[in-house]
Amino acid sequence: MDMKKLAGAMLALAFGVNVACAADAAPRTASVSPALEKYSRDALDKLWRQPDLAPRERSIATLAILIARNQSAELPRYLNRALDSGVQAGEISEIITHLAFYSGWGDAMAAVAPTSKVFAARGIGAKQLPAASPKLLAIDAAAEAKRAARVEKSAGPIAPGLVRDTTELLFNDLWLRPGLAPRDRSLVTISALMATGQAGQLPSHLNIGMDNGLTQAQISALINHIAFYAGWPKAFSAVPIVADVFASRAR
Amino acid sequence: MDMKKLAGAMLALAFGVNVACAADAAPRTASVSPALEKYSRDALDKLWRQPDLAPRERSIATLAILIARNQSAELPRYLNRALDSGVQAGEISEIITHLAFYSGWGDAMAAVAPTSKVFAARGIGAKQLPAASPKLLAIDAAAEAKRAARVEKSAGPIAPGLVRDTTELLFNDLWLRPGLAPRDRSLVTISALMATGQAGQLPSHLNIGMDNGLTQAQISALINHIAFYAGWPKAFSAVPIVADVFASRAR
Amino acid sequence: MDMKKLAGAMLALAFGVNVACAADAAPRTASVSPALEKYSRDALDKLWRQPDLAPRERSIATLAILIARNQSAELPRYLNRALDSGVQAGEISEIITHLAFYSGWGDAMAAVAPTSKVFAARGIGAKQLPAASPKLLAIDAAAEAKRAARVEKSAGPIAPGLVRDTTELLFNDLWLRPGLAPRDRSLVTISALMATGQAGQLPSHLNIGMDNGLTQAQISALINHIAFYAGWPKAFSAVPIVADVFASRAR
Repeated sequence: MDMKKLAGAMLALAFGVNVACAADAAPRTASVSPALEKYSRDALDKLWRQPDLAPRERSIATLAILIARNQSAELPRYLNRALDSGVQAGEISEIITHLAFYSGWGDAMAAVAPTSKVFAARGIGAKQLPAASPKLLAIDAAAEAKRAARVEKSAGPIAPGLVRDTTELLFNDLWLRPGLAPRDRSLVTISALMATGQAGQLPSHLNIGMDNGLTQAQISALINHIAFYAGWPKAFSAVPIVADVFASRAR
Repeated sequence: MDMKKLAGAMLALAFGVNVACAADAAPRTASVSPALEKYSRDALDKLWRQPDLAPRERSIATLAILIARNQSAELPRYLNRALDSGVQAGEISEIITHLAFYSGWGDAMAAVAPTSKVFAARGIGAKQLPAASPKLLAIDAAAEAKRAARVEKSAGPIAPGLVRDTTELLFNDLWLRPGLAPRDRSLVTISALMATGQAGQLPSHLNIGMDNGLTQAQISALINHIAFYAGWPKAFSAVPIVADVFASRAR
Repeated sequence: MDMKKLAGAMLALAFGVNVACAADAAPRTASVSPALEKYSRDALDKLWRQPDLAPRERSIATLAILIARNQSAELPRYLNRALDSGVQAGEISEIITHLAFYSGWGDAMAAVAPTSKVFAARGIGAKQLPAASPKLLAIDAAAEAKRAARVEKSAGPIAPGLVRDTTELLFNDLWLRPGLAPRDRSLVTISALMATGQAGQLPSHLNIGMDNGLTQAQISALINHIAFYAGWPKAFSAVPIVADVFASRAR
């Protein structure tokens, strides 16, 4: 065995490790279920071409669903799809930060590693990311005062710290960050709530979302999108809640 | 240092990487909790020997629970146990595909990699997997017409796309695939609903499941099984819903 | 190329693999979101300094939340923080075992690997872990008889196996293990229930927890803690349930 052969063998060994890792990340679906491969191709492609939600909105919703359900395996594919569909890197950065608060810190932190890799592979650097402390959007002081009073009344006596942080961190800070439009923050929030079956908080965020510009047609299309990415039961559980909100706004 | 020693050292290094990966996959439970090791041996073994659900049914339920909860770490062990208990590879393929719809695409996709490895290790190939588009079971047209009318009435005005896909993809396609008996599809569906706390959709699927042949004794045993694999609170939350369905069918 | 250079190259290759693994485990949050890095530093640090829950209690709650939500990525950081905050290794062992029953076997098993690594790195061995079958705490026979009768009445006819295991494994065994104080078991249980949105079982465990010594102020602070680690919606969903229990105990 000469040195070249040895080096080759060692390279193959090292390469073998990498190949094994790559194989873990991208297994062939058909080796387990030809039907799942077919549905992934046909049914999902048909879903993404449905009207009322553009691929950009579907990408935002899908990222929110995957991160809120802690499903990092599928994240790289949909991060790339989002960037290819017009979602800006800075918006993805804000989506992850938003979900730290609306889905839990661990979900956001788990999204950092796969997102960092995708950003690096596409040459996305610090310049394309929102500042930690940007100039905030103007606040609607009257609406915020009403919201704060309502939450203080319902939750203040039981969880004063939660009420304080909700005002300071969420409605006077996070929601005013300019890197993601309020309508898209609502899309992220509602997607996460539906995807994790958080029925209790859905009505208020459906109302905020429609105030922020989401339409009934978009929310209907979102329910259909949720069915595929968070399961049929989550979609059907959202239907009566959405129906009640639509009805209450029609009055 | 001669070449043999060098090769040995390099192999050890490379091997060390593999050992580290293997150690990640199979840590010694007792190094963290001797009690958990004891319960895993005694309490789980006792559970699997309880009457009313055979190891084959417990395997199907456990796979559904693990996939619906996105717990791929435990999946290889229970995939092998399922195959050893009489669950066919083709049935596992169908379980994963079924859960894409009933638990979310990401859960099914996350199950592909570990399942692919187990199938490869056991020499399970394409011939043992159901075709992507097999000849479907005959549909019960009268029952399906009633179901479709009921869902159209409740969800049609809010989520027409969801209602269309429910008919086309689920009840005129997925549920008629011959690779998994309708009774076992119900077992998968009910297990996933209980394991993820989806109370809202449980009554209709308990009724479908009992129409498909699941017995009260099996569902009672399933609740006990759910306690161990999805936690006691999920099991207790299912009890009053199951009680209502049993009572309604006794009338 | 001489042998030293070759060895160096091979080491670099092998090291490169390790570096890649390390990078996966600890990505730079700022490369994805400078804002998330800022909030992780400022908002979380402020949270941990809030009164009513000491760092030891916050550590126990955070471990319960992460394990119950199957978020092993963040686990090593908080295992180390717990050990640095006065949580004993034996208590961590009991927390994981407790969650096998209260969150599901797969969640506990997924916590074994990262915990085993942290224990090994800190030289924590078998001597510091609770025995598999220790001498149990004395049982409050009168309270247990009332609990058993209540559960037998509500769940006995539907799920007799569940009722039997609840008595034998949980209230005559797990809860009496001396390695974790009953108050801390309640903190673990309530944290897991809030973090996974299990509203149905929360009232009874809030009552058990307050009987075990948890105060209203601690539970209020826990709701605030839950907001960060399991998301704002989970915290707000817990508020009315906690309010009802507080009110019922004030009567």
